[in-house]
Amino acid sequence: MHIIHDLKIVFILLLIISFFMLMPVIVAFYYDETPLIEYFLLPIGLIIAGVFFLHIITRKQKFKQLNAKDGFFMVSLSWILASFFGCLPFYLSGTIPLFTDAFFETMSGYTTTGASILTGIEHLPRCMLFWRSLTHWLGGMGIVVLFVAILPLLGIGGVHLIRSESPGPTVSKLTPRIAKTAKILWLMYLALTFAETALLICGGMDLFDALTHTFGTLATGGFSPKNQSVGHYTSPYIHVVITVFMLLAGMNFLLFYKLITRKAKKVFTNIEFRAYIGIFIIATLIIAYILIQNRTYTGYSECLRKAGFQAASILTTTGFTTANFAAWPESAKVILFSLMFIGGCAGSTGGGIKVIRIVALFKLGVHEMKHLLHPRGIFSLKIDETPVKKDVIYPVAGFFFLYIFLVLLVMLVVASGGNDITTSISTALVTIGNIGPGFGKIGPSLNYSFYPSYIKWVLILAMMIGRLELYTVMVLFISLFWKK
Amino acid sequence: MHIIHDLKIVFILLLIISFFMLMPVIVAFYYDETPLIEYFLLPIGLIIAGVFFLHIITRKQKFKQLNAKDGFFMVSLSWILASFFGCLPFYLSGTIPLFTDAFFETMSGYTTTGASILTGIEHLPRCMLFWRSLTHWLGGMGIVVLFVAILPLLGIGGVHLIRSESPGPTVSKLTPRIAKTAKILWLMYLALTFAETALLICGGMDLFDALTHTFGTLATGGFSPKNQSVGHYTSPYIHVVITVFMLLAGMNFLLFYKLITRKAKKVFTNIEFRAYIGIFIIATLIIAYILIQNRTYTGYSECLRKAGFQAASILTTTGFTTANFAAWPESAKVILFSLMFIGGCAGSTGGGIKVIRIVALFKLGVHEMKHLLHPRGIFSLKIDETPVKKDVIYPVAGFFFLYIFLVLLVMLVVASGGNDITTSISTALVTIGNIGPGFGKIGPSLNYSFYPSYIKWVLILAMMIGRLELYTVMVLFISLFWKK
Repeated sequence: MHIIHDLKIVFILLLIISFFMLMPVIVAFYYDETPLIEYFLLPIGLIIAGVFFLHIITRKQKFKQLNAKDGFFMVSLSWILASFFGCLPFYLSGTIPLFTDAFFETMSGYTTTGASILTGIEHLPRCMLFWRSLTHWLGGMGIVVLFVAILPLLGIGGVHLIRSESPGPTVSKLTPRIAKTAKILWLMYLALTFAETALLICGGMDLFDALTHTFGTLATGGFSPKNQSVGHYTSPYIHVVITVFMLLAGMNFLLFYKLITRKAKKVFTNIEFRAYIGIFIIATLIIAYILIQNRTYTGYSECLRKAGFQAASILTTTGFTTANFAAWPESAKVILFSLMFIGGCAGSTGGGIKVIRIVALFKLGVHEMKHLLHPRGIFSLKIDETPVKKDVIYPVAGFFFLYIFLVLLVMLVVASGGNDITTSISTALVTIGNIGPGFGKIGPSLNYSFYPSYIKWVLILAMMIGRLELYTVMVLFISLFWKK
Repeated sequence: MHIIHDLKIVFILLLIISFFMLMPVIVAFYYDETPLIEYFLLPIGLIIAGVFFLHIITRKQKFKQLNAKDGFFMVSLSWILASFFGCLPFYLSGTIPLFTDAFFETMSGYTTTGASILTGIEHLPRCMLFWRSLTHWLGGMGIVVLFVAILPLLGIGGVHLIRSESPGPTVSKLTPRIAKTAKILWLMYLALTFAETALLICGGMDLFDALTHTFGTLATGGFSPKNQSVGHYTSPYIHVVITVFMLLAGMNFLLFYKLITRKAKKVFTNIEFRAYIGIFIIATLIIAYILIQNRTYTGYSECLRKAGFQAASILTTTGFTTANFAAWPESAKVILFSLMFIGGCAGSTGGGIKVIRIVALFKLGVHEMKHLLHPRGIFSLKIDETPVKKDVIYPVAGFFFLYIFLVLLVMLVVASGGNDITTSISTALVTIGNIGPGFGKIGPSLNYSFYPSYIKWVLILAMMIGRLELYTVMVLFISLFWKK
């Protein structure tokens, strides 16, 4: 591993982020918040200085071949440093007075979690709110590139289940492929951003609200510049638009590419896509039925709309709300709770365990049963009509176990602060799954500010581990990583 | 599959149970409850008639070779029929007026769950209480024989992780091995029963209480003839004795055999044993610390004793209580809650996921991480210093996924009755894990009577599926099972 080299590459990546930090500067000019500009210019300056400094000290060294360790180290480091530099505007300007809180909010942004420590949102400076939402958008973009282009090369957690042409774990072949894939993803992400923003403006939002909500939607993040989240808007049109785009953001982005290249049939026969849409429809219908039975809302259509919005929001791990679901009937809440165990599709901006992993493990279970009945029979484990080698399922099984294990571990830490079972387990699920709001003390109308610092730092780590597909961060904690 | 033949074998097995049904008859004589005797004699008569009838219609048929399907079918059927005949005394005598409740209580007994629908216990006839506890003892014995001798032959869920000399899945070689193993286990179970009963009598219990509590302990069941469970007794000695025997009952019974044959060193180096004891000690110390901090009880020793008792009771999936842990600090409750995900050792009477599976999956996770760091490195996955083939871990991974999946499924059913998240998830965990008491509406001082019938039937199925290592029952639900 070449720490200085890795650091340099991470800083070059941070340059991209610092470029986007100029956007809130423009917002500050527009809304007459010019005194706040310096708090954005300072981290930009620090990043540029960092790049310069690292360039100076490494210029005489020859470029060295990077290995898997460098990959893991860089990925984790980039999320940490992006959060560090990203939280400086909040912290230095006093918008978020405590450093822990500022870092928490920023990590929650970059990891597209959307868990907030802010108690009141609307009175905050516009440029700060814009930057807060922009961290989602940047994190969402980052994770899609990471998941589709980089993690398969590192061999993470059965990630290459999502693509048949899975490449071997050689980093040398990496560059041209990443460049090409990243470019396509980038364009699609941009196109979706334009589309949703335009549609929201048509629904009566101003540009600021439309953009910030679009950032929160496409990244499956969930930060809203409104105290009541999307519930601030009464327009059914806006709710429907955001529901649809949350679902799009939770889809495998490579499928969009197939749509564009006129392989639409492949999209609709894709097993992950079908399972994902199926889960969404079933959850929506059951929740709507419960809400109608319980007369939670007046009309059938409102019940269906609120059910659909919330199911999509939790399943895709976005975390926007149009209703205080803490007041819903218990059975509806438990359905949302169980959706927290699933998450979006692989290769989307969504978090959680991911639909394809659930599908693969389900198939493994059935496969084992068939094998028990006919010990000498030969059954192939197929996903999307392609036989899958057991070697591919292995990391998925390990992933699932570690995921549940981490949920219980984080739950114990949260509970150590005297929190009840529902609060503790849902806090663990919504941070590791990058969802945002949960149940109990972190319900949809509440926030994370009450947690003591030590719990906040554990949750920061939980959000990062969950976002980076567990293994990427967890390998840093095993001794083998640090051995020469 | 030969349904009639299978049924015949199951009925012969039921003959053993009907023999034990004579024990409550003796109790009825002793306590002057002779009018109740007929309710035990009737099911005994029915079983004998069944055996006779099945013998008549099969006597001209040649004995046919049994296959794996017959195995699965017989195992599930024996638990169902044992519960059916076993619940008749409760139902016919009116001790439990509803059939669903009587069946629930009996299945809860045979599966060593200990979840009860009884609201008041102490006023019930002695012979009925004795039979209720005896179902635990029979079920516990049954499951040890099943787990150690039969399931490995059927190839269930990585069960043969517990023995190095795992046999192949041929049923023909089965008989002599089963007979020998079953005999050893039987003797050990009997020895433990005598030992605990004697120790409890020394502590001041009468024979009835000593026997019923011993049945509940050794089967890791949890039915007590007292309304306040073991908390009825104030003697620390009794609490300690039961704590120790719960821990013994949660151990792999094959280890006792090693102890007897002077291979004690093998016991203490056994990784499952070490993990099991380690988890117990850590959980006890943390809970005791919380109780002391919170001044829940007056003395250090009382805090430690109550913590140890409850940790052992939940970890081993017994479900006895000496304290109303619902009133404990939340952090202590969450520790008990997380113990519900573990369970006893394989080859014990304990339920749950089992310690060895957790250990194996943990090792798999670490193994995958090592592999990620050095894709071409060769790492062997060792359990108890024996390299384990990945093929053995596979069914374990499938088991873990199905377990969590079932927990969520049962949780949804429980929630459909309008129950909160904590009640729903803990009901699912404690029925599938065969534990007994949980949190929320099924707390230690509460019971299962309030659930509507449809939920009770789902929980009956959940207890059975959990007890029979999932696959045994679940294979019956896949279409391949019923194909010729």
